[in-house]
Formats: sequence, structure tokens, C-alpha cells
Amino acid sequence: MAQVKPRTLSGFMELLPARQVQFDRMVDILRKNYSLYGFTPLDTPAVEAAEVLLAKGGGETEKQIYRFQKGDTDLALRFDLTVPLAKYVALHQNELTFPFRRFQIAKVYRGERAQKGRYREFYQADIDVIGDGALDIINEAEIPAIIYKTFTALGLSRFKIRVNNRKVLNGLFAILGLEEQAGDVMRTIDKLEKIGPEKVKAILVDDFSVSAGAADSLLALLAADDPMAALEPFKGKNERFDQGVSELSTVVGYLSAFGVPEDHFMVDLTIARGLDYYTGTVYETVMLDHPEVGSICSGGRYDNLAEYYTDKQLPGVGISIGLTRLFSVLEAQGYLNDGLVTAPADVLILPMTEDLSPAISFATALREAGVRAQLHCEKKKFKQKLSYADKLAIPYAAFLGEDEIAQGKVTVKDLTSGEQNTLTPSEAVALVQAGLAQRSAGAPITEPQL
Amino acid sequence: MAQVKPRTLSGFMELLPARQVQFDRMVDILRKNYSLYGFTPLDTPAVEAAEVLLAKGGGETEKQIYRFQKGDTDLALRFDLTVPLAKYVALHQNELTFPFRRFQIAKVYRGERAQKGRYREFYQADIDVIGDGALDIINEAEIPAIIYKTFTALGLSRFKIRVNNRKVLNGLFAILGLEEQAGDVMRTIDKLEKIGPEKVKAILVDDFSVSAGAADSLLALLAADDPMAALEPFKGKNERFDQGVSELSTVVGYLSAFGVPEDHFMVDLTIARGLDYYTGTVYETVMLDHPEVGSICSGGRYDNLAEYYTDKQLPGVGISIGLTRLFSVLEAQGYLNDGLVTAPADVLILPMTEDLSPAISFATALREAGVRAQLHCEKKKFKQKLSYADKLAIPYAAFLGEDEIAQGKVTVKDLTSGEQNTLTPSEAVALVQAGLAQRSAGAPITEPQL
Repeated sequence: MAQVKPRTLSGFMELLPARQVQFDRMVDILRKNYSLYGFTPLDTPAVEAAEVLLAKGGGETEKQIYRFQKGDTDLALRFDLTVPLAKYVALHQNELTFPFRRFQIAKVYRGERAQKGRYREFYQADIDVIGDGALDIINEAEIPAIIYKTFTALGLSRFKIRVNNRKVLNGLFAILGLEEQAGDVMRTIDKLEKIGPEKVKAILVDDFSVSAGAADSLLALLAADDPMAALEPFKGKNERFDQGVSELSTVVGYLSAFGVPEDHFMVDLTIARGLDYYTGTVYETVMLDHPEVGSICSGGRYDNLAEYYTDKQLPGVGISIGLTRLFSVLEAQGYLNDGLVTAPADVLILPMTEDLSPAISFATALREAGVRAQLHCEKKKFKQKLSYADKLAIPYAAFLGEDEIAQGKVTVKDLTSGEQNTLTPSEAVALVQAGLAQRSAGAPITEPQL
Repeated sequence: MAQVKPRTLSGFMELLPARQVQFDRMVDILRKNYSLYGFTPLDTPAVEAAEVLLAKGGGETEKQIYRFQKGDTDLALRFDLTVPLAKYVALHQNELTFPFRRFQIAKVYRGERAQKGRYREFYQADIDVIGDGALDIINEAEIPAIIYKTFTALGLSRFKIRVNNRKVLNGLFAILGLEEQAGDVMRTIDKLEKIGPEKVKAILVDDFSVSAGAADSLLALLAADDPMAALEPFKGKNERFDQGVSELSTVVGYLSAFGVPEDHFMVDLTIARGLDYYTGTVYETVMLDHPEVGSICSGGRYDNLAEYYTDKQLPGVGISIGLTRLFSVLEAQGYLNDGLVTAPADVLILPMTEDLSPAISFATALREAGVRAQLHCEKKKFKQKLSYADKLAIPYAAFLGEDEIAQGKVTVKDLTSGEQNTLTPSEAVALVQAGLAQRSAGAPITEPQL
């Protein structure tokens, strides 16, 4: 038979089973955490009409999008979860109740040049709160708490949430007479961390006609140790600026009430977030030991989610985690907790008699107690079956030989310690449950001890 | 601004929030059940090289597949989960441990003509056990138990699992001298239920040159009340037939040990399953009250999963649930249990003072106890906030006014019964937890009482 060489496309993550279990465990924690904050799960199609996805149009998106015809329909794969959300909310606006809080954890597609750490198919894990005409600042204040709780639940502790407000930046530009170049200036200072203040100043002055004085004031402010204090002298000069400072104060002010420790948070006036549609608070989250990774959770406040689809004013705030990339970073850095069970089963049952009924009954008892059990009935030697359990890192093996069956018992072997006990089925179930509780007491991420 | 009319493509299911929660609850149960039987989760890409997906080639698949170019790469969306599994196992064969048991619940794509109940993007929920060269019959015997437990856990009771064996059919064709027409005969009898015995006989005789006598013997056998007994007279005439009957007996024989009640199972010699690659046991599952829906869970044994990619012999057995279609049937028939909580949150917290700290603390206490809590801090009237909870069917509201705060208490209102209690935060958490335990005691499917 003519064969095709099996392969997986470059830029498409495909995990081996144990890694997949680790990935799924992270997804489960995200789902649970987002749910605890009152976000409802959505699942929009991965394929949409190209016209709908490209309503905003322009730039990188058009180049990267996977677009194709089927019959006479012009289709495309979603490139993020925000545009489908905008479509969903515009389409179903009369059936939804606002504020509408949704999370979606799903794959998106971008035909970028494949390179290390860049994926063409990758998971985003998004939450958004959408208001109907208005949305209180408290929603913006709650986001850092959600970020904090989410990463903490995943097992990460060495991270920092950076917050800024676009109104502060825009107001500042007005005060400094930089309104016309605002977009260019914002994109330039967004690169501050990457290229440093000298280069930023050079670009501002040479390319965008910013005066040296204005560039210096701006850079001094952005470098201030206490940004909130450094903003004080500019107050009273521009309404938008004042509003931004007030919003930023509110967000900072609620931090301790929401349970975000001070050392996990900072105001960083350099954060602009490239996207044009953010209008208020913006967020980034960085791993303290891996700043080179960039932000692992970003987002912000926007005034108009769905202006390309509806006249209805839909302000919102949202954040997104690039989960596939984050996972690949964690894997590469050795941050994945390999101590948790990754086997397909908790117990491998080895029947040793012709009659399988006692083994099947024990499997049923385990499953009814929530323990994952697999019968191994292949025609293999006993040693091979144990080696199977070993390769898969299955925590327990259970043997049912003639002696055990005659006594109504089962022999359970802890495959880590080698300890072996002959017990009644219900004792065996309890033993395994207790052992599994211990083995699952840990988060999916473990940070190296510094 | 130029606007695009928001729309979702025809044939692509997009659920409103409450329905999505019901769908996700079913997926959770499938995941949990498959896990209990020792299947490990996989997540292969939705996009593959077209050449890889179409390795087998031919017919409907080529017509229906979503295929497109990106750069100079010829890509396609997966149209099932079996072909990607074959690729995965062939590609990673040296890194996997056999028997390899995996489940995958994911979207697949078929560009069929959209019509009621047909989806172009739909979920399949598959399990497969893949052996390395050999695979014991006990794996085939366990499958009906998994089907039974899965649907029972979903809340369905009025269904029946039908089982046949392709070797029985093929052996029978040899005995009746129909070997040359075997494929055509098999496809024809697969239609028995749909078109009835007369038409099947006519097609067999007229189109495929089956003698009237052979057609009659075949149809009599297929209509037998006790199929296992009706097979007896044919034994000893054909090796394959005898093996098939022996396998079928083994599968039937293990049913009670595996806990499948007799009334949920039958041998049905008419089941062939169209796909060419089944070689042993085949399964279908029908809803007793909705036979028109066809099989809601089908599959079977195959001898060679990945022959298009590798010379390695990989026999297996698997089943698939067409989840999106099943969900739409359940919805249309009123089988979805609307008594379970579908709200985004369990408790809506209404702070009634300027200082939000006590409300935030209560939200934190709820979340730490696993209760989903949402703060409602929008500038809306009290009545509007209660109406928000009502529209979303949020079970509880919690009020924190000045009186409550002064006493260190919170007022919790059960929005179904209207009952209201002023309690300490920990009492309130306990009350809500107890109430939620009651409200979640039920399966996602409820059958009408007949």
C-alpha cells in the first residue's frame, strides 16, 4: 500500500500523553478560577465568515489569517477570541443580560512565520466583562485579583502584574503638546524596556518631532520610583489626565481588599499595549525570573467592543493568557510539576485467573469511588505488564490471583515505594484513594527554589 | 463607521450561555467517565497537511473536506478524530506504550449541505484502544460497559446497545456463496431498518445477483428473535464465521460481569457499519423513544489503524459519540434538565455601601469554598440588580447594607423560594453550599416520564 509519511505541521503543538495531562490540568484550573468569579463559558465556532472576522480589517491580521473558500463562501479561522466575542455580543445582544461576563479557552490561528515559541495554532484563555452603555471602574479593579488568583492557583508565585491607564498617557501627551504624535509616541514608549531610554528619546526626537524637553519630562516620569506621586504635578491641567489618575488610584486602592499582595503589583506608566482599542486601564503580567518571555497575561479596558457590528455602545474590560506559549515556556524552563500523576490510570489491574469477574468487580468498585482503573488482559508476561505500568507511571498495580480470589481479597502494590498489601476490595479502594490524595496535593507549576 | 452584519455560519452551532453550560456539563461527564476507564486525553491539531488527512483518499471525504492553501502548504481541517489518531500513533509509535488508550473530545469539520440536524462543525467524543500487533477480545467486551456507564451518567436510561461482529457477516457471506458481492451486500443490509426486508431483497437479487434462496436465508437469519441460536446451524462451515461467533459469544458473555443490564443490550446481525475498516465487533446505540435519530454512539474493532502511514500492525477498537448532533436532538426533544444551575454565578453580591471591602471579603470567602460569586457594583437601582439575577437564574443574592456590616453579617436571599436570612459570613457560605448541593443533584439529561 502506498504510504504517506505521518507528520504534524510546524507551529502546531501536539503533546505526548503525559504532557497533555499537564496541559489539561492547567486548563481545568483556569476554567475553575474563571467560574469562581462569575464568568460563563462560551464556545464560538473556530470558522467564521471572512467578512465578519475582518470587519476591522488591516495590517498584520489580514496577512496572517487562514482564509479559504468553500463553495461560494469566503471563510476564515479565528485569529483571536475578541473578534468572535464582539460578533457574538452584537448578534445576541437582545438575548444576553449585561454586564455579560464570559470566559473562553480555545484555539486560535495565525499563519505567522514558524519560529521557536511561535505557534500557528494556539490556545487563548480569555475573560471579558461587557457592559451595556456603561461599566463601573470596579470591574477594572477586580481584574488584577483574578490574575493573581489564577496564577497562584497554577502554582506560580514569582510574577508581577503591571498596570497603567491609557487616559493618563493620552492626557500627558496633551499636556506635553504631543497630541498629534500620540499614537507614535505610545508605540515608541511601549518599547522602552526592550530598547532603553536613550533609543526611545532618539526615536521620539528624530522620527516624531518631539522636543528634547518634552521627551526628557516624559522619560523622567516613566522612570519614577513612585509613579503615582510623580503624576501629581501634572494634575489639574487636563481633564482626561485627571480622570485617568483617578481611575488608576481606584484600581490601586482596591488591591488589598481584593487580596492582591503589594509585591505582586506595580503601576508602570510605560505600558501602553499596542492595540488601539484600549481606552482605560491596561494590564501586563511578567514572570520575575523570565522577563524575556514578555507578558503572560495582558488586556485592558475598551470603550466599544463591537463598533464594527452594531451601534450599541458596549464598553468592556478583558484579559487574555496565551496558554500554548506559556506552557511551552514552562516546559522549557523545567517549571512543570512532574510529581503529579500523569498516567492514564491510577490502578492497573492484573487478573491472573481465567475467570475475570473478580477483577472486573474490583475495577467497578474503584471507578465508583472515582479512581481511574484499567484492566490489563493482554496475553503478555507478568513482568511485561508491570513494565507497562512502570513506563506509564501508573501509581498502583492490583493483582488478583487464585489465593486472593479464594479469600475475597486483592493485592495492591504501590509502584513507587514497592510496598505491597493484600486487602479486602474496600480496604484496597481506601488505600488507593488516600495515596492519590497525597500525590495530587500540588499545583501544576513548581518554581525552582532560589 | 462602515458596519458588517454580525452572523454565525449556517451549520455551526453557537449556543446561548445557559445552553452552553448544559453542553459543557455533558462534556465534563464524558471526560470523567472516559478517564475512569483509563483513557488518556489527547488534543491533536484541528489543521493537518491535506496529504496526511487524505492519505486514504476517496469519495465523500474529499468532497466534504475543508481544504486550503497557506503559502505553499496544502492544508485541511480534520473531518474526524480517527485519522488524526492514526497519524499520531504512527508518528509517535516509539514514544507510546501499548495498549494505548486515548480519548479525544473535539471539533471536526465537514462541508456538507447544511440541513436540520446536520452540522459542518461538530464535536466528536471518541475513545480508542490501540494494540501493538495484537489486542485481546476483552477490550471489545468492555466497550458496551463504557457506553452503558457513559449514557447512564448523562441521565439517559431508555437506550439499547446493539452489537454484531463483521466476521460473522463475512463468514456467512462465504457460506452463502456471496463473497464477491460481500461489500455490496453488507451496505445493503445496513439499510434494513430504513427500507425494510422486501426492498433489501429486491436490491440484493436485482442489483447484486444474489440468488433468491440465499437472500431469503440471509433475511431469515437477520430477523431471528434469538440471533445467537440462529447462528448455530451455520457453525463448522467456515473458519472466519466460527471465530466471529466465538468473539460475539465472549462479548455477550462478559456483559453481566461488566455490569450491563440485559435489557440495554442486544445482538443485532443487521449491523454492518458502513466503514470498510471494521473487522470484528461493531456497535451501535439507539434511543428507544427516538429510533429516527439513528445511532448516537457507534464504533467497532479494526485490524489496522494506521496502514496508510506505517507498516506497523495496529489493531484497535473504538467508539464515537456525535455530541453536537446528540445535544441538538436532546434540546429539540426537551430532554435537557433545566433544573440544574445554568447561571454564570451561584451568588450575586449586592454591596449597598460606599466601602466595598465587606462585600469583597464575602465574595472571597465564597470563592474559597468553591462557590461562584459575582459582585454587582454597577450604578443601577436595587430592583434592576435583582432583575439581573432573575434573568440569569442566579440562585442566591447577598445584600450587605450598613446594618449587616455593623453586625458583621450578610443577608442571603434564596431567589427561588424568596426565603431570606441574615447570617454570619461562614453560616451564609454553608447555607449556600447546602442549597447548591441539592440543586446540582441530577443528571444533565431528564427523560420524560412515560
